[in-house]
Amino acid sequence: MKQLLRVQNFGVSSDGIGAGESQSFESPFGLDHGEMFAWAGATASWPNRTDPGGSRGLDDYFTRDFAHNIGAEIMGRNKFGPQRGPWQDLEWRGWWGDEPPFHTPVFVMTHHPRPSFTLSDTTFHFVDGDPGAILEQARAAAGGKDVRLGGGVTVIKEFLEADLVDTMHVAVSPVKFGSGLRLWESPDELLDRFHLEVVPSPSGVTHHLFWRK
Amino acid sequence: MKQLLRVQNFGVSSDGIGAGESQSFESPFGLDHGEMFAWAGATASWPNRTDPGGSRGLDDYFTRDFAHNIGAEIMGRNKFGPQRGPWQDLEWRGWWGDEPPFHTPVFVMTHHPRPSFTLSDTTFHFVDGDPGAILEQARAAAGGKDVRLGGGVTVIKEFLEADLVDTMHVAVSPVKFGSGLRLWESPDELLDRFHLEVVPSPSGVTHHLFWRK
Repeated sequence: MKQLLRVQNFGVSSDGIGAGESQSFESPFGLDHGEMFAWAGATASWPNRTDPGGSRGLDDYFTRDFAHNIGAEIMGRNKFGPQRGPWQDLEWRGWWGDEPPFHTPVFVMTHHPRPSFTLSDTTFHFVDGDPGAILEQARAAAGGKDVRLGGGVTVIKEFLEADLVDTMHVAVSPVKFGSGLRLWESPDELLDRFHLEVVPSPSGVTHHLFWRK
Repeated sequence: MKQLLRVQNFGVSSDGIGAGESQSFESPFGLDHGEMFAWAGATASWPNRTDPGGSRGLDDYFTRDFAHNIGAEIMGRNKFGPQRGPWQDLEWRGWWGDEPPFHTPVFVMTHHPRPSFTLSDTTFHFVDGDPGAILEQARAAAGGKDVRLGGGVTVIKEFLEADLVDTMHVAVSPVKFGSGLRLWESPDELLDRFHLEVVPSPSGVTHHLFWRK
């Protein structure tokens, strides 16, 4: 069985923006991202849910699928944290506290390697290299399962550019940011290489489902 | 975590019919069911897929979810086979050959018990009793996971009647049968107890997603 590279539950605004330009510790997305993730937070299967309940309609199929047959994640350094350049603070171990929601090896792309560490059942590795080489490492660590491409925008665009993405789920929110890190001007840019289904959800987001032609 | 009872990927016609009146060995559904399942067969995750390929759009989320966190299935005797009354032919071991697509214990509801048997990683048990008692057995066998209610129509209606169903996914096909075993006159019959989302798929089926209020 081929090990796919899958983008899962990636959120962008209606103008294609996934994050702001000015990330900080206080603002992991560099913009007011609440509205972009409200659909996911409302579902029963949202990994960070602390209370019981939550919806089990269409959106829940997407949050439920987040970890399904995923054996490793690749993420950009800016998804991991707000520091830039050489590591100043090795105490920083991600935004997610002692129980990160990944439960697999995670490969953080950076030009500034640092030692791997483990929190609960998630191990973070810091790797330098081109997308193909990093995907190869992630596949080897994934135990035969698929690899999730966790974002952010810059990393997804790099892997799209290298034609390494097999499936991509992007939830487009009915909010407009105007400026920021833009995944696309229009999803149609990808139609030369991908099938696309556009599925409006009762929650207001529009799920965009791409898979390789 | 509560062990849910879930109906997954159950197919009915636009007039609510899931099977014909006259099931036989040649006709497991007692009607021409091809059109009712074409949407599922076209997906990459369809358990019976023999060739690579298949779509990875909306419909694939449903076939992909078929086994997700499922630890046991309950099915009616008529889903298991075409015999009625006392077992004439214990050689009959279901429609599915040596590799049934369940991969868990399966509880077949029947007034005519017979010995359990195992095919590959699926074990079939034959159990008599009311829905509540059978669900209890299935939950105990499910290793903490959810239980799938596999159908057919009669069994789903019995469990709905007993108010034991937690979530239900019904794929409504754009085909009309006129007569047969009817799940509902209208899905609205369930709105007193369930939330409902109705999600049209590009394939032509309309996914109906119910979850308990």
